[in-house]
Amino acid sequence: MAETVRSARAGRPTLAVVGATGAVGTVLLQILSHRADVWGEIRLIASPRSAGRKLAVRGEEVEVTALTEEALDGVDIALFDVPDEVAAEWAPRAAALGAVVVDNSRVFRMAADVPLVVPEVNPHAVRTRPRGIVANPRCTTLSMIVALGALHAEFGLRELVVSSYQAVSEAGRAGVETLRRQLSLVAGTELGTSPGDLRRAVGDGTGPFPEPVALNVVPWTGTLQDDGWSSEETALRDESRKILGLPRLPVAVTCVRVPVVTAHALTVHARFESEVTVDKAREILATAPGVVLFDNPAAGEFPTPADVVGTDPTWVGRVRRALDDPTALELFVCGDNLRKGAALNTAQIAELVAAAPS
Amino acid sequence: MAETVRSARAGRPTLAVVGATGAVGTVLLQILSHRADVWGEIRLIASPRSAGRKLAVRGEEVEVTALTEEALDGVDIALFDVPDEVAAEWAPRAAALGAVVVDNSRVFRMAADVPLVVPEVNPHAVRTRPRGIVANPRCTTLSMIVALGALHAEFGLRELVVSSYQAVSEAGRAGVETLRRQLSLVAGTELGTSPGDLRRAVGDGTGPFPEPVALNVVPWTGTLQDDGWSSEETALRDESRKILGLPRLPVAVTCVRVPVVTAHALTVHARFESEVTVDKAREILATAPGVVLFDNPAAGEFPTPADVVGTDPTWVGRVRRALDDPTALELFVCGDNLRKGAALNTAQIAELVAAAPS
Ligand SMILES: NC(=O)c1ccc[n+]([C@@H]2O[C@H](COP(=O)([O-])OP(=O)(O)OC[C@H]3O[C@@H](n4cnc5c(N)ncnc54)[C@H](OP(=O)(O)O)[C@@H]3O)[C@@H](O)[C@H]2O)c1
Ligand SMILES: NC(=O)c1ccc[n+]([C@@H]2O[C@H](COP(=O)([O-])OP(=O)(O)OC[C@H]3O[C@@H](n4cnc5c(N)ncnc54)[C@H](OP(=O)(O)O)[C@@H]3O)[C@@H](O)[C@H]2O)c1
Repeated sequence: MAETVRSARAGRPTLAVVGATGAVGTVLLQILSHRADVWGEIRLIASPRSAGRKLAVRGEEVEVTALTEEALDGVDIALFDVPDEVAAEWAPRAAALGAVVVDNSRVFRMAADVPLVVPEVNPHAVRTRPRGIVANPRCTTLSMIVALGALHAEFGLRELVVSSYQAVSEAGRAGVETLRRQLSLVAGTELGTSPGDLRRAVGDGTGPFPEPVALNVVPWTGTLQDDGWSSEETALRDESRKILGLPRLPVAVTCVRVPVVTAHALTVHARFESEVTVDKAREILATAPGVVLFDNPAAGEFPTPADVVGTDPTWVGRVRRALDDPTALELFVCGDNLRKGAALNTAQIAELVAAAPS
Repeated sequence: MAETVRSARAGRPTLAVVGATGAVGTVLLQILSHRADVWGEIRLIASPRSAGRKLAVRGEEVEVTALTEEALDGVDIALFDVPDEVAAEWAPRAAALGAVVVDNSRVFRMAADVPLVVPEVNPHAVRTRPRGIVANPRCTTLSMIVALGALHAEFGLRELVVSSYQAVSEAGRAGVETLRRQLSLVAGTELGTSPGDLRRAVGDGTGPFPEPVALNVVPWTGTLQDDGWSSEETALRDESRKILGLPRLPVAVTCVRVPVVTAHALTVHARFESEVTVDKAREILATAPGVVLFDNPAAGEFPTPADVVGTDPTWVGRVRRALDDPTALELFVCGDNLRKGAALNTAQIAELVAAAPS
C-alpha cells in the first residue's frame, strides 16, 4: 500500500465484510471499490473454507480470514452477508465486541430493538440501535420503498396494493443456474404450448423453485405462512410498515417469480391521504435521491429489468393517477435486487453510521 | 357425408366461421370439432387468398370460400375472427343479410347497442342485440372475468386492482416467433446480467413488442391513450364494467407482457360490499361453471401458465383474504388466451344464440 493512501486512511473506521466470498459479498466488494472511500482498513471474512483466499477491493488484494472473535477485534462496522444461522450467532457476538453490525439476513429485520434502515427514507432510525445491530430490508421491499418513501413524505400513504415480478437471482447462484438450464431445454422447441409439456421437459430440474420458471410465471416465493400467505408477502407488508413508520398501513401483496435473471419489478397501486396530481408526483420522483423517473410511453420509455440490471437506483415509470380515485397513483417500479436490493443498501447504512457514529 | 349425419343435421342452424384460416380461427375449428355438435352446415370463410383451401372441422374436409354476400347467404350465425377493418365493414353486412354475428374484433365491444357477452356471467345480455351483433371481450378480460363474475354474484364487487402477466401469443404468430427467436439468442449465454446487454443482443428484433421480452418483463401492451394509460388497461376496466353490469366499478390496472407463449395470468385484489370469508369464496370458485379452483400451496398447488395452456377453464389459486381489509380477497387467476380468451367464448356465445334464437 502506498504511504499516502496509508496515512489518508489513518483514523478512519475499520470495516469488516463478513460473507465476502458470497453472492451478495461479491457485489458489495465491487460497490466498496467504486463509492467514495471513507474506510480505514477493510477486512474480508468468511467461513474457514475460504481462509487464505485473496479478493480484490479498492484495487488491492486482501486475504480472507475465518470468522473468529480475533478477526472481529478492533472492527468499527461489520457488514454481515451470511446465512441466517451464522448471523443469528455472530451478529450479537460482533456487537458485544464493539462493532456496529449491519445485517442482511432475515433474523433481525422485524425485531423491535433493531432498526430497519433505508438511508433515503428513514436515515434517523440508524441512530437508535440498542443491540448494536442495524438490519437491511429484503430485496423486494428495497426495490420499491425509496420511490414510495418520497411520495409518502409529500402525500401521506394510506394503502398499498402491490404485485411483484421477481428475478431468479434472488435465489442465489442456484436460481440463476436453474433458469439457464431450463432455457437451454426450451430454446428452439415448441414447448409452452400444450398442457404439462414444460413440466415434463424440466422433470425434477426445478431447482429452488416449485415449478418450471422458463416460459412460465410462478405465483409463489418464500415459505408458507398462515391462511395461504407466503413469507415474502407478509414480510413485504411488515417491512414497508416499519421503514415508513406506518404500523397500520394496509398492504395487499401477491408475489410472483418471473424468468428474469436480475432486477425485480413491481406494480404499485398507492392510495394517499388526499388528492394527488401526476405532475406533482413526477416532480417528486424526478428529484428524489436514489430514484430515476423513466416515464414517457409515447417515446417508448418505461423501465424494464433489462434496462435497470447493474444500476443503483430505483427506476419508476408508468406514473398515472387512478382512473376512479383522485387520491391514488399507479406505478411500475424496477430495481436491481443484488445492488440496491442487497449490497448497496448495506454500504449506504455503513456510511451513515460512519458519518454519525452516535 | 354419411346419410345419418346429414339427416341429423337437417333443420339445425347454419354456422359460418369468418377468418377460419387465422390463429383464432384455427383454434375455433378444433373447439367446434370437440364440443357437442349443434350445427347444421359449417361454412368456412376467409380472404380470397385462401379460397379453395380445405380445412378439417368435425372430422370432415371443408373448402374455404372467399368472404362475399353469397358466401353469407342463408347463414344463421357468423363467427367473425378477422382484422378490425374487415369486421367493421362485414359484420353489419352479415347482420343485414340475416345472420347473428359474434364478433371478436375491437370494433364493437364498447358500442352501447352491442352486447358484450361471457356466457357464464351475463348470458341474458345476448338476447338484446339491436344491430344483430354480439361482441366477444378481449382475452385479458376473459382470463379473469368468469371467476370474478361468480364472486360478484355472491358478494357484490366494489373495487378491483389488477396486474397482468400477459403471454406473447396475444400478438399472434409474430409474437410467438419473436419470443422464440430471442430465446435462441439468450440460451447458453450470460445475457440479462449487465445493463443493455439484452437490448444489444436483440437489436431490432423486438417484433410486435417495444422491448426485448426474453429474460424481461415489459410494462406495456396496447396503444397509448390519455394520461399515460394503455388501451389494454382502459379496455380491461371498460369491458369488466359492461360485462358485470357495474358501470361505475373502480378498476385500477397495470398490464405487463411476460416471456410466456400462451396463457395469461393476473393478480386480483377484489373488494366487496361486505365482509367475505375464504371458505365461502373457495366454495363458490370450486362449484362455478368454467372455473377450476387449484389452491393448496402446502401441496405446491397454484395455477401457472404451464399448467393451464391448452385447457378451457379459468384457473384460480392463491385465494386469501386481504390482511388488512375483511371485505377484500387476493387471487391469482390464469387462463388460455387463445381458448377461453378468444375462440372458446365465441363458440359458447354461438351455442347460446342457437339455443334461444329470440
Ligand atoms: N442473494 C440475494 O439476492 C440476497 C438479497 C438480500 C439478502 N440476502 C441475504 O444475504 C445473506 C448472504 O446471501 P448470499 O446470497 O450472498 O449467500 P451465499 O452466496 O451462499 O454466500 C454466503 C456467505 O456466507 C459465508 N459463510 C457461510 N457459512 C459461514 C460461517 N459458518 N462462517 C462465516 N461465514 C460463512 C460464505 O463463506 P464461504 O464462501 O467461505 O462458504 C459466503 O461468503 C443471506 O442471509 C441472504 O438471505 C441475499
Ligand atoms: N390472437 C389472439 O389472441 C386474439 C384474441 C382475441 C381476439 N383476437 C381478434 O381476432 C381477430 C383475428 O385474430 P387472429 O390472431 O386470428 O388474426 P390472423 O391470424 O391474422 O387471422 C386473420 C383472419 O382474417 C382473415 N382475413 C383477413 N383479411 C380478410 C378479408 N379482407 N376478408 C376476409 N377474411 C380476411 C384471414 O384470412 P386469410 O388467411 O385468407 O388472410 C384470417 O383467416 C382479430 O380481430 C383479433 O384482434 C385475437
